[in-house]
Amino acid sequence: MLLTRSLRNLRSLWRDLSAQSQRRLERRVHPDLRDGDVQRIREEMRESLAGRGGEVSSRSRAARLGHTYLTLSGIGRRRFLQLLATDFGTDRKGVMEAIRAFQMATGAAARDAEERLRSALIPPRVRLLSQFNDLPDGVKFVVDLRADLLNLPPSDETLKALDRDLLGVLTSWFDVGFLELQRITWDSPASLLEKLIEYEAVHEIESWTDLRGRLGTDRHCYAFFHPHMPGEPLIFVEVALMEQMATSIQALLDRSAPESGPHQARTAIFYSISNTQRGLRGISFGSFLIKRVVDDLCASFPKLKNFATLSPIPGYCEYLASRIAGGNAVFTPVEQSALAAAGADLSQGLPGLLRPGWHTREALATALRAPLLRTCAQYLMAVKPGGRPADRVARFHLGNGASIERLNWLGDTSVGGLRQSAGIMVNYGYRQAEIERNHEDFTTRGVIAASPELHRLAAG
Amino acid sequence: MLLTRSLRNLRSLWRDLSAQSQRRLERRVHPDLRDGDVQRIREEMRESLAGRGGEVSSRSRAARLGHTYLTLSGIGRRRFLQLLATDFGTDRKGVMEAIRAFQMATGAAARDAEERLRSALIPPRVRLLSQFNDLPDGVKFVVDLRADLLNLPPSDETLKALDRDLLGVLTSWFDVGFLELQRITWDSPASLLEKLIEYEAVHEIESWTDLRGRLGTDRHCYAFFHPHMPGEPLIFVEVALMEQMATSIQALLDRSAPESGPHQARTAIFYSISNTQRGLRGISFGSFLIKRVVDDLCASFPKLKNFATLSPIPGYCEYLASRIAGGNAVFTPVEQSALAAAGADLSQGLPGLLRPGWHTREALATALRAPLLRTCAQYLMAVKPGGRPADRVARFHLGNGASIERLNWLGDTSVGGLRQSAGIMVNYGYRQAEIERNHEDFTTRGVIAASPELHRLAAG
Amino acid sequence: MLLTRSLRNLRSLWRDLSAQSQRRLERRVHPDLRDGDVQRIREEMRESLAGRGGEVSSRSRAARLGHTYLTLSGIGRRRFLQLLATDFGTDRKGVMEAIRAFQMATGAAARDAEERLRSALIPPRVRLLSQFNDLPDGVKFVVDLRADLLNLPPSDETLKALDRDLLGVLTSWFDVGFLELQRITWDSPASLLEKLIEYEAVHEIESWTDLRGRLGTDRHCYAFFHPHMPGEPLIFVEVALMEQMATSIQALLDRSAPESGPHQARTAIFYSISNTQRGLRGISFGSFLIKRVVDDLCASFPKLKNFATLSPIPGYCEYLASRIAGGNAVFTPVEQSALAAAGADLSQGLPGLLRPGWHTREALATALRAPLLRTCAQYLMAVKPGGRPADRVARFHLGNGASIERLNWLGDTSVGGLRQSAGIMVNYGYRQAEIERNHEDFTTRGVIAASPELHRLAAG
Amino acid sequence: MLLTRSLRNLRSLWRDLSAQSQRRLERRVHPDLRDGDVQRIREEMRESLAGRGGEVSSRSRAARLGHTYLTLSGIGRRRFLQLLATDFGTDRKGVMEAIRAFQMATGAAARDAEERLRSALIPPRVRLLSQFNDLPDGVKFVVDLRADLLNLPPSDETLKALDRDLLGVLTSWFDVGFLELQRITWDSPASLLEKLIEYEAVHEIESWTDLRGRLGTDRHCYAFFHPHMPGEPLIFVEVALMEQMATSIQALLDRSAPESGPHQARTAIFYSISNTQRGLRGISFGSFLIKRVVDDLCASFPKLKNFATLSPIPGYCEYLASRIAGGNAVFTPVEQSALAAAGADLSQGLPGLLRPGWHTREALATALRAPLLRTCAQYLMAVKPGGRPADRVARFHLGNGASIERLNWLGDTSVGGLRQSAGIMVNYGYRQAEIERNHEDFTTRGVIAASPELHRLAAG
Repeated sequence: MLLTRSLRNLRSLWRDLSAQSQRRLERRVHPDLRDGDVQRIREEMRESLAGRGGEVSSRSRAARLGHTYLTLSGIGRRRFLQLLATDFGTDRKGVMEAIRAFQMATGAAARDAEERLRSALIPPRVRLLSQFNDLPDGVKFVVDLRADLLNLPPSDETLKALDRDLLGVLTSWFDVGFLELQRITWDSPASLLEKLIEYEAVHEIESWTDLRGRLGTDRHCYAFFHPHMPGEPLIFVEVALMEQMATSIQALLDRSAPESGPHQARTAIFYSISNTQRGLRGISFGSFLIKRVVDDLCASFPKLKNFATLSPIPGYCEYLASRIAGGNAVFTPVEQSALAAAGADLSQGLPGLLRPGWHTREALATALRAPLLRTCAQYLMAVKPGGRPADRVARFHLGNGASIERLNWLGDTSVGGLRQSAGIMVNYGYRQAEIERNHEDFTTRGVIAASPELHRLAAG
Repeated sequence: MLLTRSLRNLRSLWRDLSAQSQRRLERRVHPDLRDGDVQRIREEMRESLAGRGGEVSSRSRAARLGHTYLTLSGIGRRRFLQLLATDFGTDRKGVMEAIRAFQMATGAAARDAEERLRSALIPPRVRLLSQFNDLPDGVKFVVDLRADLLNLPPSDETLKALDRDLLGVLTSWFDVGFLELQRITWDSPASLLEKLIEYEAVHEIESWTDLRGRLGTDRHCYAFFHPHMPGEPLIFVEVALMEQMATSIQALLDRSAPESGPHQARTAIFYSISNTQRGLRGISFGSFLIKRVVDDLCASFPKLKNFATLSPIPGYCEYLASRIAGGNAVFTPVEQSALAAAGADLSQGLPGLLRPGWHTREALATALRAPLLRTCAQYLMAVKPGGRPADRVARFHLGNGASIERLNWLGDTSVGGLRQSAGIMVNYGYRQAEIERNHEDFTTRGVIAASPELHRLAAG
Repeated sequence: MLLTRSLRNLRSLWRDLSAQSQRRLERRVHPDLRDGDVQRIREEMRESLAGRGGEVSSRSRAARLGHTYLTLSGIGRRRFLQLLATDFGTDRKGVMEAIRAFQMATGAAARDAEERLRSALIPPRVRLLSQFNDLPDGVKFVVDLRADLLNLPPSDETLKALDRDLLGVLTSWFDVGFLELQRITWDSPASLLEKLIEYEAVHEIESWTDLRGRLGTDRHCYAFFHPHMPGEPLIFVEVALMEQMATSIQALLDRSAPESGPHQARTAIFYSISNTQRGLRGISFGSFLIKRVVDDLCASFPKLKNFATLSPIPGYCEYLASRIAGGNAVFTPVEQSALAAAGADLSQGLPGLLRPGWHTREALATALRAPLLRTCAQYLMAVKPGGRPADRVARFHLGNGASIERLNWLGDTSVGGLRQSAGIMVNYGYRQAEIERNHEDFTTRGVIAASPELHRLAAG
Repeated sequence: MLLTRSLRNLRSLWRDLSAQSQRRLERRVHPDLRDGDVQRIREEMRESLAGRGGEVSSRSRAARLGHTYLTLSGIGRRRFLQLLATDFGTDRKGVMEAIRAFQMATGAAARDAEERLRSALIPPRVRLLSQFNDLPDGVKFVVDLRADLLNLPPSDETLKALDRDLLGVLTSWFDVGFLELQRITWDSPASLLEKLIEYEAVHEIESWTDLRGRLGTDRHCYAFFHPHMPGEPLIFVEVALMEQMATSIQALLDRSAPESGPHQARTAIFYSISNTQRGLRGISFGSFLIKRVVDDLCASFPKLKNFATLSPIPGYCEYLASRIAGGNAVFTPVEQSALAAAGADLSQGLPGLLRPGWHTREALATALRAPLLRTCAQYLMAVKPGGRPADRVARFHLGNGASIERLNWLGDTSVGGLRQSAGIMVNYGYRQAEIERNHEDFTTRGVIAASPELHRLAAG
């Protein structure tokens, strides 16, 4: 089990303990949480739930539990989590009783019974976890606790309910209404910027110089922060302000090109969105982030007219490989001849087609262009298991109300870009006037909004 | 129905609307909310709950509903609230179905069924109200909405469930962990300070000069703020740093006395705590506020040893009047003689005893002193309907783990002080080492912590 | 001699002293500065100038001298200032020597000789005073020191050179380039706002409510601050954003009128400018303040087209009285008849004309209107002793490049307004395109820019 | 001539120009400043000095001149500076007249004459340069202007007076009283931190990781800033909080060692001080910086008792080489034998002694230790041309009142350290109680404070 590095947490939780609490902790638990330790912690949790010593005492008790957790080994943490999972869920008997009362109650009594049933359905561990929100770094502690949980083998059935409860607590804490949008610039703290380098998940930031290039006057970066986790971005998006829609990520990231003043820009390209907190998996900030950034950019740069992404197509090559393997006629006879003439070996499946260095061999690249763009358009627009696009990036942007605008041949010639999507990138367009309708059509009827060009491509 | 002044809200909610939304609003509703208007609003709410147009669209829809509400008259607001109360509660049929599923499910399915039952118990209006949290002034809007609701006649049974839901939403938003403690000084914004003048509920602030006196170097003021309601204190406490325990509120507030340096002070007197938001009734911040202020003061002024209040006893005179009216022997024969000799007319009940100006007439005041202090001690320590002290201020501080330290004869000679408690004030002491035990004893067994002096007094 | 209240200074200067310095001060000087004390201070000053103990030691030495000064009585402070005046001026002999060297030097040596002459002309007390700038509140200390000096009887010839040096030091410290412009609003600290109430010199602020009215959305206030005197405005100006040019100060200050949104305003009226620091007399901030405020307003409110003042005419009544006393024909025979008919007694001079309550007596006011407006226009435009307007407010605004736009009959019916200028107010206009030329014409040739209306009025 | 990079300056100065000024600039000057251009600029400067258009107009005129300057080539800038040097110095004739008047004046008139003489000695260019202080980036502009000047060949005699005037203006602007001390941490803006990397002059910062190590909890960095040059450190010092006095810079900078909590530290080691602005050469901030940092550290870490440096000895090897070359008996016969035995070749001078890699060859290093430490102690304590230590770092710290505490053998084994000082480093100690006396003795009598150990070493 991977231990979340939480040394800072440890310190601030500890600082928060009273001298008395610190003394109690001197009889410390074993890092692997032996049986006797489990028993002691169980009792401490029960005391806490019983509210012994008053509401404010719960604070130092939670700090003590948190501090103990952070001193544990992987084995110890697992046992701690299992204790929460097994002993502090809802009391089924209590729920059953509340249900009976609810079923029989009428009138005003029905309202009280409903309230009591609602109460009975809140597991005790939720109340325990909620006490962390006013500790210094307590919010981050619960986020990291869930990250630990997600790192455990998924086979462990008993932990799933605990994860659901953690997700519930975190969903309420991280309601988008409580988040703050901040623009990140080269004037931001270095301690924050190094987190961008660490967390960037789409197009790796190679150095501080590379990072600086992404924070110039025509390159913006925005992030959401939680007021109780200052300095920790939850999600961030990188935007390029440009004359025209970007067609290549390498060109976009090349900072040797002269900066065009952002005030002349007509197009904002969202070229990277990264989530940072594993412990917040399943809580979605992306669509809100895009919406707010669009608002902010519109206010700052009145000439901006177009908002689009330059996005990867992570599932395309896998899809293409399976179609070729499936043996059905992926390419027309004319295409097959051209490909063979250019040196492709169709009998070897995708690897025979996309031979190393293919994108630099002009004849091969030319022969591949039309059939790959066609099948890519088909992948994005027609492959919908369960009525939803197979590609997860497509699902995200189409679900936000965007439309597929354009495919970019050789838009990403990095190793990863070639492997995932044969170097093709896609622009998703966010058009203010159409977002609501697109979202509605997509959500209710699975309709995918796309430009005429895309429809033409997919039709072959 | 009193309309909450929300002009500022109105403006910022409106600003948040898109041009399209503003056009829709041009076909405005009647301030009294005619029947057709109710129907339109009902539909708008349903659309919102159906999530039409995507998650982010809900924002402008909520803004629109909020804006409409703020344009309504008292009659219109009442109909709006009734609509929420009657049409958007839990669906009893849905709950019953979820209950049946829960009762039959076992194993992993039981967890899903539990989750669905929990979901079914969340009334749709809670989801509606939750959408306000990311609007500018949206949090304040919901607080004021509840204030409007609380101003309606309580007879209206259908509104009680709505109030409970509002309280639930607000309780989660105003969790003490999300609040910020700030010290308020004479350097704070005037716009904030005028709110102290408006909200001070215990000892009226008469002028800016009076206020300034309460913010000197040896007079502190602290308040809790919510990050989404900046500039609006939720609760504030006024503290005097003194050599000794204060015995008179008039002496404490008299700023003609020279300031003693706060760094010499050994005693912190909490002499006023005021809640400010009617819409947050039932959410308790007081005990946390005291805890945090004590922490802050300890860190700033290491010589501070004693923390106590100088508090009113709001229920004492009423209690004494009823005892006298009850005819049982309140005073000893000796006391009765002394009182009569000093000019009291015992046959006239309390008014005969506490004749206008009695506190300035030395003989009468002297005769009253012993019997009043005794009965006051008895009131605080022995009158416990349902096992809890009758006096609400006593209930609050004893519940926090404080103890009754001392009664102060003629501690408050203002009109209100004389009327409520015959001028007597009480010090509740907060002793760090005893708070947990006091709280525990009080909560579990109703034990009231008090000094030997108080015990002696009550024993008569 | 009026003592400047400087308790805060005292504290912070004292705090800055090392323990050793504080011990030395225990042998304190007498508040009236006896002869022995003068001798001790003279030595301390000489030591300081000799740089004993290194550059950084000067800091605590200056703090010690400052602290001593603040403990002195009026008599003591006078002797302290006289000591500075008599003992620490330029050394005439040293200057004479430097002059001789300068006269004889040629080539590169001339430059060195020039530098040495320049040095010799800097009085030692200037170096002493300069050391205060890095003490906490040291800048304010020197400002207050000069205020003390200005409060001494002007007869004291020996102090004039000291004042010139102080003015020189302060002029360099308070160079407008180092000042910060801040807008003051109702959200500003109360401790700052109370200073506006104290310092407002033109139209008294009667209460916090009055002040609040002057800080609304269509009433702005701006001030200059020095970075080393935070919270102390140096000068502030009050501006009203209006539809039209204001004609009456009472109407402008009447806050019962509904606020018009500032974003519709076309005219900014500067209706009050007040200097606050007596110790900065002779250092002019007003023209820069107006320039910067105009810039700020233009940026914030693009619809603003007109910038003007609503100003008093402090010298008009005195001028009119002297003309009447002078016996020359101030009024035409027709005017004289009309005035007599309306109840004025011309034989009594100005008091006979402006009898108490005259402005409420319609006939008299009507008869006065034309001759008073005419003579007022003449006063502003034609009375130029030494080539400059006699009226100090006119001098200030015309020197800034403004023009006289309009006279406002009964524009200020306060007691002061009636007494100074028979209730007449004037608008000076600041027209961006004309300011440079107006300033130039005024400065070089004494030309007064004025509207055709004013020329017509003055021509009678 | 090296052009100072001032693109940011250019932008903000330009932004500050009115539309009218920008039009005038459209008829732009040639980058090399042709003769006609020089004439135009001369006129513009004269207009500015004549004050045409009023005081506030000077602002846009200065902005225009500044903007022009920044567009010039090296040749153009030189001609611009020469124009300032030749045409805008003091008017010798005017000075002579003022001198005559001063020599003849008596009484009150003498004071006026003195004032006029002082005025006449201020060169017009000083008034021109002073106008830049209220332009955005105007202060930085003048600093960079002087940097340009200092980059010109020193032969140019006419420019020296200009440099003196620039130094005078900058000395007054950068008076230490106006500077702000800030601690720089890993939470500081990256845009600021990259300047540390750029400016560090003593021990090069190799990477962001290296920098991060220097900003940990037990490594502090402080800098002075000018309020009008935010984000531009003027000088910064790096401090290590340690248990004991540091003996090796490599050990100090090695961040693989575990951090000891700074709260346990008893010693603060100042191991690097760097000036950053070439244009401020000759203005000394170092001693004030050390004084203020010591104050700040004392307040934050009460256990700190010792303050010392770990400093290079830049002149030692040069001194040693010249002594050896001088042929006098540097080493004792015993030493000579030992050195020869260890492989040194004394006939080759210093290179024969300090052969590449000598510090890693144990025998040689051992043989060198005693004689090198001795001669180094002699260099620091006895080599005093003109009564002042030859070593510039020694001069600085001894002048501040520090004492020489200890020599550290192999304290700096970097290439530079070995080349400059044969790897020896020195600790200068700052003892609060002795600083004043040390400074005094050093300044007045050239006495060098040193520990007994140093005296012993030097005595050999």
